[in-house]
Amino acid sequence: MQETIARIRKFRDDRDWKQFHDPKNLAVSISIEAAELLELFQWMSGEESARFAAQNQERVSEEIADVAIYLIELADITGIDLVKAIDAKLEKNAKKYPVDKSRGVSTKYTDLE
Amino acid sequence: MQETIARIRKFRDDRDWKQFHDPKNLAVSISIEAAELLELFQWMSGEESARFAAQNQERVSEEIADVAIYLIELADITGIDLVKAIDAKLEKNAKKYPVDKSRGVSTKYTDLE
Amino acid sequence: MQETIARIRKFRDDRDWKQFHDPKNLAVSISIEAAELLELFQWMSGEESARFAAQNQERVSEEIADVAIYLIELADITGIDLVKAIDAKLEKNAKKYPVDKSRGVSTKYTDLE
Amino acid sequence: MQETIARIRKFRDDRDWKQFHDPKNLAVSISIEAAELLELFQWMSGEESARFAAQNQERVSEEIADVAIYLIELADITGIDLVKAIDAKLEKNAKKYPVDKSRGVSTKYTDLE
Repeated sequence: MQETIARIRKFRDDRDWKQFHDPKNLAVSISIEAAELLELFQWMSGEESARFAAQNQERVSEEIADVAIYLIELADITGIDLVKAIDAKLEKNAKKYPVDKSRGVSTKYTDLE
Repeated sequence: MQETIARIRKFRDDRDWKQFHDPKNLAVSISIEAAELLELFQWMSGEESARFAAQNQERVSEEIADVAIYLIELADITGIDLVKAIDAKLEKNAKKYPVDKSRGVSTKYTDLE
Repeated sequence: MQETIARIRKFRDDRDWKQFHDPKNLAVSISIEAAELLELFQWMSGEESARFAAQNQERVSEEIADVAIYLIELADITGIDLVKAIDAKLEKNAKKYPVDKSRGVSTKYTDLE
Repeated sequence: MQETIARIRKFRDDRDWKQFHDPKNLAVSISIEAAELLELFQWMSGEESARFAAQNQERVSEEIADVAIYLIELADITGIDLVKAIDAKLEKNAKKYPVDKSRGVSTKYTDLE
């Protein structure tokens, strides 16, 4: 992960783009890239999206990477350790959605969120 | 990263949620969480968003984690190695935005994208 | 429509919020509200979303209205007549998706977009 | 507005696309189009976005129309009168953001939302 962060920093700094990459602009870019990822599956059912992803792994991979790059950069400039942040959130979610009450229940999940 | 992926899988499987987590639904959830992250900075200028992030690191950290969890899970179920995907995309972007033509130019960046 | 625009303007100006409502901030807000609308249907199939909408018309109505208010305001401050904009876009789309080639084909639709 | 709704319906039905246009898929499409609108202003400041919109009215107009078309269709298939929905939401918002407490305060606005 440290190497990946270093590579993302270098890509940005080689182009002198740090001036544009404040938290708000990065969050805007994450939303834009997330929508491009979603667009791949726009009119599909869930099953169709699984088939499409299996047959178009490179396109899916590129759109996932676009979201990830901005997300890692946002964590980096705000001093957040992404792996620790994920671990802490999974622990919090585990309390919010207890196994016995959440098993197989997506609506519960949505309502509680 | 492998440990993080394992933790995310376990969280999902303990709750029997894999049935809902097809690529389309995960992409929908990434977009929703990305918008919640963006909402933190909704009416701010870029500078204000930097100040806000510095003073509210935990809230920013939680919203970043929510996006990351679904993104890692989507990569996982579609057989994509996230770190390799990022490296490949950075290489592709480096060709798309040559250093000498992109330096300090955000509009170019937007137009080419 | 003119009355609706007048009401939206008055709501904003009574609170002196025009200073925050530049095109970028309004586009950000449209994205945030669109994600809240999407969240209503987060883990549902298409059929479930139709049932949910029928049984929760007021919640759906409120989220639709939130998107519409910012969208109408963005059109208003940029001097765009929303009804004319829609008519022009439908005409353009009609050429892009000829009836005989587009009938019942959602993938075509996605690919061409 | 009634004419616009009729035009949108005809466009969809000529292509036999109603089968894909359930509430969830329309909400997904609204989010995707909202992100394309936001992308126009991706790395800009608020002032730059106002200048850009003034100089590129047609592009802004087309992206606004794309969001509006899906939004009007979603209201239509869920039996929601869009103008009434907006009026009801403005009334609700007026209570949520009292003029005397909200004047010129964007942070309040964000926090309460």
